[in-house]
Amino acid sequence: MRIAIVAPSSRFSEEAAARVREIAAAHFPGVELFFHPQCFLTHNHFAGTDQARADALVEVADDPAFDAIWFARGGYGACRIAEDVIGRLGPAARDKTYLGYSDAGYLLAGLYRAGFKDLAHGPLPQDAMREGGKAAVVRALGWLVEDNPASLEPGLKPGMRHAAFNITVFGLLLGTPLEPDLSGHVLLLEDVSEHDYRIDRAMFHITATPSVRRLAGIRLGRVSDVPANDPDFGEDAEAIVRHWCARADIPFLGRADIGHDAANTVVPFGLPPL
Amino acid sequence: MRIAIVAPSSRFSEEAAARVREIAAAHFPGVELFFHPQCFLTHNHFAGTDQARADALVEVADDPAFDAIWFARGGYGACRIAEDVIGRLGPAARDKTYLGYSDAGYLLAGLYRAGFKDLAHGPLPQDAMREGGKAAVVRALGWLVEDNPASLEPGLKPGMRHAAFNITVFGLLLGTPLEPDLSGHVLLLEDVSEHDYRIDRAMFHITATPSVRRLAGIRLGRVSDVPANDPDFGEDAEAIVRHWCARADIPFLGRADIGHDAANTVVPFGLPPL
Repeated sequence: MRIAIVAPSSRFSEEAAARVREIAAAHFPGVELFFHPQCFLTHNHFAGTDQARADALVEVADDPAFDAIWFARGGYGACRIAEDVIGRLGPAARDKTYLGYSDAGYLLAGLYRAGFKDLAHGPLPQDAMREGGKAAVVRALGWLVEDNPASLEPGLKPGMRHAAFNITVFGLLLGTPLEPDLSGHVLLLEDVSEHDYRIDRAMFHITATPSVRRLAGIRLGRVSDVPANDPDFGEDAEAIVRHWCARADIPFLGRADIGHDAANTVVPFGLPPL
Repeated sequence: MRIAIVAPSSRFSEEAAARVREIAAAHFPGVELFFHPQCFLTHNHFAGTDQARADALVEVADDPAFDAIWFARGGYGACRIAEDVIGRLGPAARDKTYLGYSDAGYLLAGLYRAGFKDLAHGPLPQDAMREGGKAAVVRALGWLVEDNPASLEPGLKPGMRHAAFNITVFGLLLGTPLEPDLSGHVLLLEDVSEHDYRIDRAMFHITATPSVRRLAGIRLGRVSDVPANDPDFGEDAEAIVRHWCARADIPFLGRADIGHDAANTVVPFGLPPL
């Protein structure tokens, strides 16, 4: 089992890579992790230039020697390369598992639209640096290495298609060439470090979009590290999401066990393997 | 000349209203300003509940005694009421001038889509509280009261249709029932208090939207109070907008004299009266 790690967004660190290697060696000794050198490049905000990030991702995705692509971290930058990368990918890229969340959602979205079958929203190598992050890395590798059902979000419904995204990322890929058709899907959403009014504004936009109104429903993960609002917004994330779902006649299907934290679980896109 | 002021977004203040009354009395003594009592309501983040804000706007827009509607301030909240309000407006609402910017852009967008003819992006009553804000209020009233061409953005092209929006607001109304058809228009954009990466992400979304690719071009106003980014983003707002315009094959037509500041000028939607 060979897993390639690339960083399509913000800069990754040798320190995080070392933590992940250590956890993998202890729990999945047969697994080979390849941290592409691009992970450690720096260009402004990013893990290398757009060209470097795109080339690294295409290189490992098209290499039949790898079984899975694991996105190193979120941050920002995947939207700048996603369309180009997906247009360049060859057949070997379709035989792989892809795992990530947050900013990597732009890639998951575009790959899902392009018909890739084995995509999942779940922990990233960078999560190794969180308090309790070892469990997140073990959960992610459990999914990548052995399809361990213990890694899965506990509320996935057999026979229902699912997808999961960061609220802000999902809103800003609607209408673009990365937008997937999520008709009939249960959409799991989460966010971090956004003011309540930004969540409200994003949910206005998301739920007013005609394609989103064809969802089977929305489940809300954790919305964490919400900056203080002055004046107080008066509604928390769940109240906000319930409000917009009701207005748009989209079923609100309760909470979900995903978020920007060490407890984040795995949500395969499409039908769950249950 | 009677101008009604309502607050579709965040809370307004008696202090700002007094400043505006004082400036109007000195410079436009024949003008009657009516600050709807709704301006001074408080509900959480907003100038009253969604119902109160919507009702006040419909009331003054449908009242033939008023010649113009001036949005009191930006902030957040207009997207929550815009579709409902526009659906309720009667014929008298179409004979009026509407002026505002920032969060009021949701209303300008929806009204433009609904065929309203006399809409403009420009200073708000709240701008009276800025350093040098008197000039902004005089510029706004000069437009509302006497169509003073000195109030206009200096780069408007005769015979070309224009529209102007806040970048974040514009991005989050695309794909919604508020999105106007801006084919062939020159779009002027500005923003405030957004990180560079947020501007970049918003411009990805905006310029990847097929309808936006039918613009005649984009001009960039001021992008001010940009919070520090760690690491530095490496490109300023103009470089970001040029980058995305080039990628999307949308002409970048230079800078514009609009922004969240006292120098903000008036941009009538559609053809300029030149």
